Amino acid sequence: MDLAEYIRNIQDFPQKGILFRDLTPLMGNPEAFSYAVKSIADFFKDKKIDKVAAVEARGFIFGAPIATILGAGFVPVRKPGKLPFDIKRKEFQLEYGMSILEVHKDAIKSGERLLMIDDLLATGGTALAASELIESLGGEIVGWGFVVTLKDLKGEEKLKKYPLFSLVNLD
Amino acid sequence: MDLAEYIRNIQDFPQKGILFRDLTPLMGNPEAFSYAVKSIADFFKDKKIDKVAAVEARGFIFGAPIATILGAGFVPVRKPGKLPFDIKRKEFQLEYGMSILEVHKDAIKSGERLLMIDDLLATGGTALAASELIESLGGEIVGWGFVVTLKDLKGEEKLKKYPLFSLVNLD
Repeated sequence: MDLAEYIRNIQDFPQKGILFRDLTPLMGNPEAFSYAVKSIADFFKDKKIDKVAAVEARGFIFGAPIATILGAGFVPVRKPGKLPFDIKRKEFQLEYGMSILEVHKDAIKSGERLLMIDDLLATGGTALAASELIESLGGEIVGWGFVVTLKDLKGEEKLKKYPLFSLVNLD
Repeated sequence: MDLAEYIRNIQDFPQKGILFRDLTPLMGNPEAFSYAVKSIADFFKDKKIDKVAAVEARGFIFGAPIATILGAGFVPVRKPGKLPFDIKRKEFQLEYGMSILEVHKDAIKSGERLLMIDDLLATGGTALAASELIESLGGEIVGWGFVVTLKDLKGEEKLKKYPLFSLVNLD
């Protein structure tokens, strides 16, 4: 199945000069959505995944179904102020300023095996920060799964210590 | 399975006087998370659901797996400025001021059968606004599924025109 057909290009979103890859047509198509989550889950199915972690909010749309297919728990990695209990926080640099991610400290037990999911890999800054946050709680990252990788932005280099699976590669 | 055991009460979050129901322990437990999404999907499995719509961001965590179990597409209902294509927007009153929801106009074809999902039903203001947004695009709402309903807040009255299924009822 050619998932690239279900990705819409939006010029200048969210700001001028950015070509945004809109995955809502893919999510909205039952066959494409099911194929995407099942294919990523299948790639990691023998890796004894305890939990799937995903970054708010588009990551939840792919990460949560992958967790249920794998029989794993789900760990939301969120923007500041959204999680109500004791949190661990990570500040990191993105292209246009600082950003922050948070996770509940009790969301992961030391030694648990985590699969990390997001919809799209661009520069990898958010993914690397999420990885470091999970590892700081003792989680062992088994790999990263993406629906789309933007190859030219070289996010794969930032994540090179992790096995990485992507369904669609775009320039 | 008693899902209430996996719900954590947080006093004064996100603001003083609010008792927040934290579902992250439920998501993080593989059996509880799987049981929750499968039970809701099972309730609606004979209803010929074309698409599942859910409200950002916690709704995505339950709505997206339910969509894949039902073989349906997924429609994200989002906060303002997040969706990049032609959107329909709904402003509505919440307890503490106005709020806005948006959905892509091409996310729903007229006559499609929609299952609406959110993690928790409180006053029902957000759920009613999301319903009206989906119906304004021609979607036919088959029902609402929640993991938790806070009975005292009477959200069920606001949604009384829709079949409603909830796994856990709390005061």
